[in-house]
Amino acid sequence: MAQGPTITTIAARAGVSIASVSRVLNGLPTREDTIRKVMAAADELGYVPNAAARSLKSNRTYQVAFAMADIGNPTYVAMVREIQPVLKAAGYRLVLHSTDGDVDDELDVLRRLGERYADGLIISPLRGFAQQHLDLLAGAPAPVVVIGSVPQDTPVDNVRTDSRTGVRLALEHLYGLGRRSIGFLNGPLDTIPGAARAAAYTDALAALGLPYDPDLVEVGDFYRAAGARAAHRLLERSRPDALLCANDLIALGALDALREERLRVPEDVALVGMDDTELATAAWPTLTSVSLGSAERGRRAAELLLDRLEDGAAAPRIVTVEPTLVVRASTEGAS
Amino acid sequence: MAQGPTITTIAARAGVSIASVSRVLNGLPTREDTIRKVMAAADELGYVPNAAARSLKSNRTYQVAFAMADIGNPTYVAMVREIQPVLKAAGYRLVLHSTDGDVDDELDVLRRLGERYADGLIISPLRGFAQQHLDLLAGAPAPVVVIGSVPQDTPVDNVRTDSRTGVRLALEHLYGLGRRSIGFLNGPLDTIPGAARAAAYTDALAALGLPYDPDLVEVGDFYRAAGARAAHRLLERSRPDALLCANDLIALGALDALREERLRVPEDVALVGMDDTELATAAWPTLTSVSLGSAERGRRAAELLLDRLEDGAAAPRIVTVEPTLVVRASTEGAS
Repeated sequence: MAQGPTITTIAARAGVSIASVSRVLNGLPTREDTIRKVMAAADELGYVPNAAARSLKSNRTYQVAFAMADIGNPTYVAMVREIQPVLKAAGYRLVLHSTDGDVDDELDVLRRLGERYADGLIISPLRGFAQQHLDLLAGAPAPVVVIGSVPQDTPVDNVRTDSRTGVRLALEHLYGLGRRSIGFLNGPLDTIPGAARAAAYTDALAALGLPYDPDLVEVGDFYRAAGARAAHRLLERSRPDALLCANDLIALGALDALREERLRVPEDVALVGMDDTELATAAWPTLTSVSLGSAERGRRAAELLLDRLEDGAAAPRIVTVEPTLVVRASTEGAS
Repeated sequence: MAQGPTITTIAARAGVSIASVSRVLNGLPTREDTIRKVMAAADELGYVPNAAARSLKSNRTYQVAFAMADIGNPTYVAMVREIQPVLKAAGYRLVLHSTDGDVDDELDVLRRLGERYADGLIISPLRGFAQQHLDLLAGAPAPVVVIGSVPQDTPVDNVRTDSRTGVRLALEHLYGLGRRSIGFLNGPLDTIPGAARAAAYTDALAALGLPYDPDLVEVGDFYRAAGARAAHRLLERSRPDALLCANDLIALGALDALREERLRVPEDVALVGMDDTELATAAWPTLTSVSLGSAERGRRAAELLLDRLEDGAAAPRIVTVEPTLVVRASTEGAS
């Protein structure tokens, strides 16, 4: 059992000088019987070599970091649940960073990779890859896998989803239910998902032959309370018969707002979330939601990183996970 | 902008040999003008000293770790939301470990503290502090703060809650509503919360003059699906008019089961969760829940750790956070 042995306790146990222990642990030439005594004492005391000293030699920490925007968003939890076992089976411990989607925080995580506290990084940058990300990425001393979009030809392993198809599936479903006034509660347009979903919503409306009505669109943030506020603002000026929400947290907020306005879901307003998190089934009525394959994206990212740790020179790969629509009570009525 | 400078690019920029750069960066004797050239080049290239090499000198990584059982449990998310800003304001980055409540995993986190990848650790051990934890703790080379109970006189900073009082508040509330057949869905008895809540339930029943009926008690796990299964088992053999659940996830599972059995909440069965997580308000009906002050426990733990990082020699402190009962629709009917 490790009792936090130090160079001093090892010296005492081995019956040699502190200087001798230091020489042995640092691999300097020493008398053979001294080496044997020190190694035996270190072993008995459960001595753990200092990671700093050790990583200078082995160049491996057997830690991998995952940097995500918000530990409170079940999308990322679903990713962690898949990433962790894949890495663990390969002997790596996972450490997590919750960046609040703050670009400086993300850049700091990338920069600190240079300090070799982890052998690799999976990062899901909320506001996309800026030039600064790319600069740091180019010189990253450890493999990086990005979950989310990156600019074309960025030389990095990348797992993405197709939210455009996801939005289209949601609107076609609502259209099929006879809804024609389909509102949209989005997150910030300077985020990757916000921008992508805004474009996808516009395109999907056009494909269905529905007009784009700015009164039916509100932009808030990817949190529940922000979703409720956005829904209230939208309902003040228009009366949609369906609402698409850019994630499940926004949809939960919309559900709060609709309840306050005494509108029934789905009778008056059909409601669709995105990400298909566990909140979708915690809510009542349960939420129809676009699954963007978070679990699968997490698993694929972990696999790409392990491959990269094996072979740093292979060509970067892009994996795309297809979305699906999971229909529940918030659009179809019966639980 | 850091372009991931290496010893090679620094050598090229400085116009000196790689061996010279190595000598300078490792602090070995070198000609003064060589030192100047290398330092200037390293500076221009944004060279980040290797954490390993640097921490051997400064002994600080400016990272703090938080090890919790399950990143998917909103109790821990609530803690993280408080811990992170407190540490960030003091210049520390937070890294997270999700241990699945696995004792070996927790021990590994404690052991790796010896490798100096973090300056301190906040840990919430699900199954309590075994002798092995204590052994490692005694020799921990970095400060540790424990959220949860520790054996008396353990020399460690400790933030705890009083779940006994929390359970009593819940049962008094249900009793006040006229409920007399109050069941209990617990988590594993070999966990700290499971054991504490089992004892508290028995005591609270006795204090109210209600008999203990083993048919009204089920033990499962702290997850939603396990809660649903436990509720089904209990409902097969008895018909309580109220259910206390050892956390909100179990309560969500119980809600699923009650819905399947076509029992109304709260008319037929009043339902109380514990931890007062965001799931309590996501559920419908919204859940009455015992708040064990997760956010406050997180904040206090971060503060204790910062104090300890300043003054390693101060006497260990114990902080107790008082529980409260948050009454919602699952016991009182109206939303």
